[in-house]
Amino acid sequence: MEYRFSDRMKNLSANAIREIFKLLSKPEIISFAGGLPSNEGLPLDKIKEITQEILSSDKALSILQYGATEGYSPFLMQGLEYIKRAGIYNQSKENILAVSGGQQGIDLMFKAFLNKGDYALVEEPTYLAALHILKTYQAVPVGVKSGDDGIDLDDLEQKMKQYNPKILYLVPTFGNPTGKTISEAKREKIAQLCARYSVIAIEDDPYCELRYEGKRLRSIKSFDKTGNVVYIISFSKTISPGLRTAFAVGSKEIIRKMALGKQATDVHTSSLSQAIVEAYLRKGYMDPHLKKVIPIYKSKKDLMLQKMQEYFPEGIEYTKPEGGLFIWVTLPSHMDANELFMDAVAENVAFVCGDSFYPQANVRNNFRLNFSNATPEQIDEGIKRIAKVIKKHI
Amino acid sequence: MEYRFSDRMKNLSANAIREIFKLLSKPEIISFAGGLPSNEGLPLDKIKEITQEILSSDKALSILQYGATEGYSPFLMQGLEYIKRAGIYNQSKENILAVSGGQQGIDLMFKAFLNKGDYALVEEPTYLAALHILKTYQAVPVGVKSGDDGIDLDDLEQKMKQYNPKILYLVPTFGNPTGKTISEAKREKIAQLCARYSVIAIEDDPYCELRYEGKRLRSIKSFDKTGNVVYIISFSKTISPGLRTAFAVGSKEIIRKMALGKQATDVHTSSLSQAIVEAYLRKGYMDPHLKKVIPIYKSKKDLMLQKMQEYFPEGIEYTKPEGGLFIWVTLPSHMDANELFMDAVAENVAFVCGDSFYPQANVRNNFRLNFSNATPEQIDEGIKRIAKVIKKHI
Repeated sequence: MEYRFSDRMKNLSANAIREIFKLLSKPEIISFAGGLPSNEGLPLDKIKEITQEILSSDKALSILQYGATEGYSPFLMQGLEYIKRAGIYNQSKENILAVSGGQQGIDLMFKAFLNKGDYALVEEPTYLAALHILKTYQAVPVGVKSGDDGIDLDDLEQKMKQYNPKILYLVPTFGNPTGKTISEAKREKIAQLCARYSVIAIEDDPYCELRYEGKRLRSIKSFDKTGNVVYIISFSKTISPGLRTAFAVGSKEIIRKMALGKQATDVHTSSLSQAIVEAYLRKGYMDPHLKKVIPIYKSKKDLMLQKMQEYFPEGIEYTKPEGGLFIWVTLPSHMDANELFMDAVAENVAFVCGDSFYPQANVRNNFRLNFSNATPEQIDEGIKRIAKVIKKHI
Repeated sequence: MEYRFSDRMKNLSANAIREIFKLLSKPEIISFAGGLPSNEGLPLDKIKEITQEILSSDKALSILQYGATEGYSPFLMQGLEYIKRAGIYNQSKENILAVSGGQQGIDLMFKAFLNKGDYALVEEPTYLAALHILKTYQAVPVGVKSGDDGIDLDDLEQKMKQYNPKILYLVPTFGNPTGKTISEAKREKIAQLCARYSVIAIEDDPYCELRYEGKRLRSIKSFDKTGNVVYIISFSKTISPGLRTAFAVGSKEIIRKMALGKQATDVHTSSLSQAIVEAYLRKGYMDPHLKKVIPIYKSKKDLMLQKMQEYFPEGIEYTKPEGGLFIWVTLPSHMDANELFMDAVAENVAFVCGDSFYPQANVRNNFRLNFSNATPEQIDEGIKRIAKVIKKHI
């Protein structure tokens, strides 16, 4: 039968990456398409130890019961400690919400703020799921120019004036898809511009702990004096994506609205997942774990950059990120990554075409590479195959 | 500052029950307000055993990684077996979606179908969270009359004609809040009416396994010949609400739209939660567990009914459910449960006022009692206190 689906679903096709996932299930494919942390980066032994402790403790039954929408209270308390790493102090439990992964944080923010037709600014290119979620609210994304140190402040201010947007969405640290980081000086100015133009910034910061070089920067939220910034920090890249845990941090009024929105969807985040991450943080497992995994990630990133230099022809540009999971490749402007893609899959190698990360999907000479979820051998061989495909099209 | 929240949030106050939860945190209160399964009904030992096995198995790392939005494949396969209990056969993996609790299933269905201003039919009274979620889509709930054996078919058909609704939302078995069950003959006719008027029925069935008397009825979905019924079955009342797991079952087209909607919110349900429930079902733990817990629930239900008969004055009516978690009390029409409520809390006993379960909140002489999460002593003492309050107001 013909179903009468809602308007918001009409232009919603599948998220490109999650569809590629399915396409790439054949084992011989070397995939640089995902955004998965390395399996070596998942602290299985510690999670096993912790989970057994939780389910043997006197809190076990309360963890299996219904919990509060706002989150498991000890988890929220750990969260308030944890965000100090990003320079965020003086928050209370009313400023924090447990969410089922960082992406739910984005969704709840859009739900809280955006009517049909409202404008949301995004860095260009930006995280494609944010664009996907915007569609479900029939909101209008407006791209803001971005340079090597992130978003262009003049263009940002101009677009704040021109569009009167409600939301600015950013991944400021090792951004997805580019791997670029917004400088600290710019972060302070972004907070100021948001305050001046009454724009709410969503600072989506899942990669901040995966820094391989340079020094940690303060979050945009740490410069927020007016309650205009909501900070989202996920544990998917540092502990486990499968557990679906993250925090949103913001003013009491915003967190309250997000909690009402969450109450009307999944009621609360899995209490077992929250309790596992709570214990992980409380026991101080995060820093030793990062110390162990960062050299692994760094060596993969360095190897991929080295192989790109070795195999890629002249005229191909790419970012050299200080952390995160991604390298962003820019082909000469006459080339189209989408045309390369099918050839690449035929060569048993995959990436994500760059147009998915643009609000209008109108820039086609980029693609995104993930280096974290491949072996050194796969990186060598995969980059060699991509170079071959590029040479065919250049 | 003044935030520019979205229109959908403007009339969204907190879900009455979840707010009562917070109010009732003082330990001396006897609460019949929740919808919690009994702690004795949570199979902690089995969950502990299973979780240890999962995290020791060769699947552990893949469970900690990102998973498919549609769900963990072995969990979906178990789901296809499990729904046969409700008379639902011949479904494939494309007909089933893992969701983060039954409530997310409702949310994803409304997201997939409802535009602002669209009509949705609900039994009167109905599950209050469904009304709450409807608000977030700015859809319009229309109440349908309901008798002792559930929804009134004449009124249902008349309202299908009058409103051209997209959705009919029902809790057909031991409904929340009334505990009433729709007869099997009516179920078949509901499926036929939905097909005739192109209405999609959401059959929300979280309580079906908690049957204390009588025989199990086939689901509405089992009578669906046209793809007009979506069946939602939760494990919150039978295994653990804290794990947030449920299934939605429907036509491929609808499940696909729900998956797209889910992709744009929490990406996927906690894989650990899915794996725990998968193993629980696979190992055949459900039936022995139900056999153990049903007598416990039944004895609480019978005790509460007995105490109501003993303590309540003449003129107070209440349902005598064959299962589920709730008894629905009807006061004489001149009385207002909301006026009783504060007196009840002063007497350290609580229930949920009935008006929250009506689309227009215009029927005020009912309240809902939960019997599953109190001890026999609390049931005796709590009903005595409520009787005292009723006598004061009658």
